[in-house]
Amino acid sequence: MPRTLNIALLQHACPVDAAADDNVETCCRLARDAAKQGAGLIVTQELFAAHYFPQAEYESLCDLAEPIPGPTSQRMAKLAAELSVTISASLFEKRAPGVYHNTTATFGPTGELIGKYRKMHIPDDPRFYEKYYFTPGDPPGSDPGSGWQAFDMPTEDSAARVGTLVCWDQWFPEAARLTALQGAELLLYPTAIGYYNHAELGEPPEVREQQRDAWQTMMRSHAIANGVYVAAANRVGTERDLTFWGSSFVCAPDGRVIARASPDKEQVLLAGLDLDAIEAQRRGWPFLRDRRVDAYRGLLDRLTD
Amino acid sequence: MPRTLNIALLQHACPVDAAADDNVETCCRLARDAAKQGAGLIVTQELFAAHYFPQAEYESLCDLAEPIPGPTSQRMAKLAAELSVTISASLFEKRAPGVYHNTTATFGPTGELIGKYRKMHIPDDPRFYEKYYFTPGDPPGSDPGSGWQAFDMPTEDSAARVGTLVCWDQWFPEAARLTALQGAELLLYPTAIGYYNHAELGEPPEVREQQRDAWQTMMRSHAIANGVYVAAANRVGTERDLTFWGSSFVCAPDGRVIARASPDKEQVLLAGLDLDAIEAQRRGWPFLRDRRVDAYRGLLDRLTD
Repeated sequence: MPRTLNIALLQHACPVDAAADDNVETCCRLARDAAKQGAGLIVTQELFAAHYFPQAEYESLCDLAEPIPGPTSQRMAKLAAELSVTISASLFEKRAPGVYHNTTATFGPTGELIGKYRKMHIPDDPRFYEKYYFTPGDPPGSDPGSGWQAFDMPTEDSAARVGTLVCWDQWFPEAARLTALQGAELLLYPTAIGYYNHAELGEPPEVREQQRDAWQTMMRSHAIANGVYVAAANRVGTERDLTFWGSSFVCAPDGRVIARASPDKEQVLLAGLDLDAIEAQRRGWPFLRDRRVDAYRGLLDRLTD
Repeated sequence: MPRTLNIALLQHACPVDAAADDNVETCCRLARDAAKQGAGLIVTQELFAAHYFPQAEYESLCDLAEPIPGPTSQRMAKLAAELSVTISASLFEKRAPGVYHNTTATFGPTGELIGKYRKMHIPDDPRFYEKYYFTPGDPPGSDPGSGWQAFDMPTEDSAARVGTLVCWDQWFPEAARLTALQGAELLLYPTAIGYYNHAELGEPPEVREQQRDAWQTMMRSHAIANGVYVAAANRVGTERDLTFWGSSFVCAPDGRVIARASPDKEQVLLAGLDLDAIEAQRRGWPFLRDRRVDAYRGLLDRLTD
């Protein structure tokens, strides 16, 4: 029996002036559409429940965070059960007063929480002030919820071992590798990336295109280096100073892009994954066989010059 | 004063029936051409002095190995002094009877040896039987010649900190990172990669193209992830079962390919590198700032599932 998985990425806008519930409603509508089209795993874009609030630093925006379980996570859990699918949902988690995380919670087809990952690499750039809002995920330790996360989907007929990462993690080969070494067959990257849309101060069009290409190139390289599928779900639309570039995509273990969404339109992006292709690819290019684990200690240093 | 470096990659065929000295002569001719065109750093393709002998396993082919210093390395050292350039030469090194390495020796413009790197990741695939011939480089240790290598070019007016890696290392983000963490501004990959040219048993044309694209994608990702220049020098031509795909290239710290050679012709590929672009790129995308060195210990394991 060939092992296959149908995945759907949900790409949509999150207008700044949307009512509190609108974005979650949009997500639920697209998820229902995805399930109708046969998706077994549905992946939201990063922080789909709100506009991209880290664009500015306001204490009051921390009120958007919710505990897990909490209202939004419970809606996602219920939706997974209703549709009998697995849903990987990117949430703004309130862990404790003043301790908030950028967290992916994954719910299986009976609505149970099957995996939780707290974003490990946190960016801070002009208009992406995430270090203000998000406490980094704990390093791997005795708590099984800390560090890098891969877990099995609980369904038998449509199942994969899924690794969850978030946005800025995209740029770190270490994150992809560590998750793949846990046996992940598929790396998920909910993301919120775009460009500064000011006509004079923003990036010129050729730089925007080059940045979007670099973003895709990095994730394609994670697929190739690890022999895994990679999927990235990004938002679209303009929110104040930022225009998000969509272009959600799925690539195969050989790095080929097998599905790619529009740069600016709402879309449910579907892809059928042949999970047997992973071992075939790794036999052809046996990189995991040849890692020099005796020679990598310097990776634990900031610099080694 | 802007810091710039002119680099030249030498791409040529190494016919199986060439006389013993022909390939070295070809290399010297192309190096002279490169120097005439203003190159300050000249990079040979992998094992340029011979046909790609690891295509089959014969004890007698170990006779191709030479100590360093030895006849071929001394010719390269002399050539560097004659042209007043730095030459990074990929050699089959005899370290001891029965202990051979795939080694890059780099000679400064007075002919002195300024860096030596022994290939750390060794492939073994049908028709690429390198594990038979090449002892892997020693892990980093008390010997400064072991492990990952980055070093300063000794010239003042045209200088960079250079990191040397070889071919199969291309596929391992760890190798690029470890070399970049030593301060390398430029990663060099001499390489010998191509496809099995049998009409029925070889890869179909679309797979060949996909593999070449994956090869370039991986190295572009090293440039992006580390904010460094990357240069790969590959051979061309058909040698028995293998046809090498050329396509030597240089890419910038943002991942853009700034120079690319023909897939099948002899060529001196020149590129002018603006070394100040490295810090500018790293300020825009500060990945080295955000590495989670507290959370990477699993990279020292084979698998962590």
